[in-house]
Amino acid sequence: MITLHHCVSARSFRPLWMLEEIGVAYELKMMPFPPRALARPYLEINPLGTVPAMFDGTVRMTESSAICQYLAARFSPGKLDVGIDEPAFGAYLNYLHFGEATLTFPQTLVLRYLHFETGERRQPQVAHDYGKWFLARLRTLEPLLSEQAFLCADRFTAADVSVGYALLLARHLGLDQQFTPSVRAYWERLQARPAYRRAMVAQNGAAISQGVPTIASPDIRPE
Amino acid sequence: MITLHHCVSARSFRPLWMLEEIGVAYELKMMPFPPRALARPYLEINPLGTVPAMFDGTVRMTESSAICQYLAARFSPGKLDVGIDEPAFGAYLNYLHFGEATLTFPQTLVLRYLHFETGERRQPQVAHDYGKWFLARLRTLEPLLSEQAFLCADRFTAADVSVGYALLLARHLGLDQQFTPSVRAYWERLQARPAYRRAMVAQNGAAISQGVPTIASPDIRPE
Repeated sequence: MITLHHCVSARSFRPLWMLEEIGVAYELKMMPFPPRALARPYLEINPLGTVPAMFDGTVRMTESSAICQYLAARFSPGKLDVGIDEPAFGAYLNYLHFGEATLTFPQTLVLRYLHFETGERRQPQVAHDYGKWFLARLRTLEPLLSEQAFLCADRFTAADVSVGYALLLARHLGLDQQFTPSVRAYWERLQARPAYRRAMVAQNGAAISQGVPTIASPDIRPE
Repeated sequence: MITLHHCVSARSFRPLWMLEEIGVAYELKMMPFPPRALARPYLEINPLGTVPAMFDGTVRMTESSAICQYLAARFSPGKLDVGIDEPAFGAYLNYLHFGEATLTFPQTLVLRYLHFETGERRQPQVAHDYGKWFLARLRTLEPLLSEQAFLCADRFTAADVSVGYALLLARHLGLDQQFTPSVRAYWERLQARPAYRRAMVAQNGAAISQGVPTIASPDIRPE
């Protein structure tokens, strides 16, 4: 049985969505955000203090896009995964990383310095710098997505989950108002997926039953 | 023939180091930093304006840790790569992402707001926040590296290249003074590798012959 530690709307939504795409059984352990501050025993499970933490037997992982690739390779070869023998293998790996390193991290600066910090620690300039940074990088997907439905391999893959989460975070931050047309249409395609919707229902249901707030709380990994 | 676009000491050092570990032929195209500003035609090669850009036949990639995994899978199965059938497969994917998303991006905030920006745009608080952030995440490797020489699979892999670059960047920023003992010893092991040294020689030689400054210039991906 796979166990996933998750905060509502945090990066751990990626593996949750993947689990629903695959259809394997899993246990969802909801944490208040940020767990580092509000659930101190969690540091024994994950010393980083971040979500996700995913356990599959003796396998333990904490990087959300890496977990997507792992789950795809293990449970969905040739479907959600892209194999080394496919022409799109390089593009697949590239978009898995692009979704996190290039499209998600910059947005956490917006979140932190515009929403989480208070008073003199707010940094509107930094939030502006990285909001602009994110949108400039995101625009590079417009030509590709004007010609194809998904990022690579002519099908929906784990790479779309990696990038899709960045678009969800952008919606929480109000940056989705500046999506270009094909990116916007792509984002609508992703949200219409039954597994995406089941993941949303699963996190909200688990939050209520486990007594955790259901408000959006992307993981900014603060100290 | 593989082509790699590279700036001295930028993230593109990862694939350069990997190419030297593997021993395949490659062409190194040096760019002044930042290429977005100083080499405008490069935007036609990579619209992101960032390095690396790596070409292998029809494969085109821009995410440095993804390129490491790609090169390992294609040219070094069972050695620099960790296969899906190995117990360390999950850990391998996790450290590939950890090296970039968790250990490198935060340092680019230090670089940008303490070194690249000037005057009122400098943000010492932000640099301090993310220097501390990086060191806290890095410390979680101490128990692991006190017991084993490399991150996973009982051998040197592409995951060590991903994390190793973060340690190189930390040295450029002076953060290496705060490395814990086993992390420091690991960093010394990495620097002693012949392929690491060959990569350093290759970038400096190519910078001189191609008329590009040899000073350190990690890619902060500014606008």
